[in-house]
Amino acid sequence: MAYATASFVVYGTNLDIKPASRRSPAGLAGRRPMVAVVRCVSTRMETGNLVVDQFDLKEYMAEKGRKVNEALDLAVPLRHPEVIHRSMRHSLLAGGKRVRPLLAIASCELVGGDEKAAMPVACASEMIHTMSLIHDDLPCMDNDDLRRGQPTNHVLFGEDTAILAGDALLSFAFEHVAVSTVGVAPERVLRSIVELGNCVGSEGLVAGQIVDISCEGKVVDKDVLEYIHIHKTARLLEGAAVCGAIVGGGDEEEVKRIRSYARCVGLLFQVVDDILDVTKTSEELGKTAGKDLASDKTTYPKLLGLDGAREFAQSLVRKAEGELAVFDAARAAPLYHLARYIAYRQN
Amino acid sequence: MAYATASFVVYGTNLDIKPASRRSPAGLAGRRPMVAVVRCVSTRMETGNLVVDQFDLKEYMAEKGRKVNEALDLAVPLRHPEVIHRSMRHSLLAGGKRVRPLLAIASCELVGGDEKAAMPVACASEMIHTMSLIHDDLPCMDNDDLRRGQPTNHVLFGEDTAILAGDALLSFAFEHVAVSTVGVAPERVLRSIVELGNCVGSEGLVAGQIVDISCEGKVVDKDVLEYIHIHKTARLLEGAAVCGAIVGGGDEEEVKRIRSYARCVGLLFQVVDDILDVTKTSEELGKTAGKDLASDKTTYPKLLGLDGAREFAQSLVRKAEGELAVFDAARAAPLYHLARYIAYRQN
Repeated sequence: MAYATASFVVYGTNLDIKPASRRSPAGLAGRRPMVAVVRCVSTRMETGNLVVDQFDLKEYMAEKGRKVNEALDLAVPLRHPEVIHRSMRHSLLAGGKRVRPLLAIASCELVGGDEKAAMPVACASEMIHTMSLIHDDLPCMDNDDLRRGQPTNHVLFGEDTAILAGDALLSFAFEHVAVSTVGVAPERVLRSIVELGNCVGSEGLVAGQIVDISCEGKVVDKDVLEYIHIHKTARLLEGAAVCGAIVGGGDEEEVKRIRSYARCVGLLFQVVDDILDVTKTSEELGKTAGKDLASDKTTYPKLLGLDGAREFAQSLVRKAEGELAVFDAARAAPLYHLARYIAYRQN
Repeated sequence: MAYATASFVVYGTNLDIKPASRRSPAGLAGRRPMVAVVRCVSTRMETGNLVVDQFDLKEYMAEKGRKVNEALDLAVPLRHPEVIHRSMRHSLLAGGKRVRPLLAIASCELVGGDEKAAMPVACASEMIHTMSLIHDDLPCMDNDDLRRGQPTNHVLFGEDTAILAGDALLSFAFEHVAVSTVGVAPERVLRSIVELGNCVGSEGLVAGQIVDISCEGKVVDKDVLEYIHIHKTARLLEGAAVCGAIVGGGDEEEVKRIRSYARCVGLLFQVVDDILDVTKTSEELGKTAGKDLASDKTTYPKLLGLDGAREFAQSLVRKAEGELAVFDAARAAPLYHLARYIAYRQN
């Protein structure tokens, strides 16, 4: 968690994504951020609302993350047949920031629901995310051997077990929501299942992955790039938030605003990722920097220029914030700070 | 559809599974069926109930199968991104007897529900079945190039697309039930989603497949063999029937009986498959006969002897019939005849 020491700028100024001093990617040399960097060790920022300003996202994420991990651990216990459950648990409990569950819980609380109501959809969103990672890592897909410093599922358990572990996590996500969501009207539980299903299938993650595969090595335009990111990344973040709002009792207008907020945040995540790739060193990122530039991959800085990408990112943060404006400020604090965390992260 | 010309024996007598005349597998020579073969061209049999006796399973299966095919075609239309939908439709609409959807619809009608209420769970059971076939056919699993005379999904579309098509079908199954089941109490729709999820996951199809993989080349006992078949085959047949009964408005006792009926029928399917492998010629089966005997695969005739396997099959038919006895005979006719169709099939 790099948040507590992250750079950020105060509300309303430009996005601060500092170019790496030790590298000047071709075509991007000399492009400096439009505002000075404000380095600080606190997450607090001035909005004029004391509760929002004093909200500690790091603490919130740690507390909710711990509860989500406990719930996931309980939901998928080690039982017979052991090998498939070991395989499922290896990837499901491998860590990660639990951003999707966090969005589900925070959105549920935003509309007045409680954490308990949101926990099954929160866990389901993480099961689905884990399934997509396991299947995407397979040799016939991205062929990745490592994830979060651990051997990927198929490296440890074999491709057959990895595929089955993904299938089991995917189906269990729906079963878990249907069986474990308590104190919520069944109509709302059903709506959340429709939403989750739509996140995964041929209009969701799968659609994004298939278009991404078909565009490999090709230059794509902004519409196609956005289609891929919206489907591969933003859709499940959006789905998690929307499911949280649905089981929390949100009305149509609230659900619509939360959907728009989460879609912006999901796209923002990708735009910032692309910007960091060209503005940070490998050391700062903790992974190979500049690899998008070296490869054929289309990115926002390549399409829009670095300034253009920053302006796009900033418009997404503003839109996300705008969607939260109608809610109670104290309840909106986690989502408000989460958007900034994603925008201002340094790796 | 071989049913109209299938051999069967009248109600209450022994199962008629005729040993192949042209081959006498080692250890099984001279074991003849206990009753004479009755060859006939009609599906009718005497039960004393005119409606049941005059019921035409072939016609019923053709009519329901056509409606299921239409519903599946509508549920997964060819749309953007085209390649994933072509891949999904290739396997989903490749034919097959639609036994799972048939069980769902017949069980729904058995408890007084209508076909329309059952259609979404019927389609979902076929989507799940199709997903399991696509993933099982992959090179890292069973490595099959052909299914029903057609190239398998990964042969036509590549492994990556085949895995994604399976994932999309699996998630869409749940979404489809949640969004398309109309005129049914949402509590019942949720229960059917729990049932379907449980069919697939690490307590269902996936559990059966993983135990099957781990037992490859080993001799297993009857309990393990039954575990594999119950999970790999019977569980989804059971789930389809149970979901039909749930959305049809069945009470606990009715659902319990239909579950037991379908589990017997599912296991029966495997036992008969094993018996046919040693008693029929390749020509009669339309696939290689005797391959279980030549391989390390544990089968019921190997564990119990051919007579023992037949007795076991017969006990399963009797139990399945027993579960139907409490229902209205006319409504039970499709399930009653379906059990016989599976028991007395010749290939």
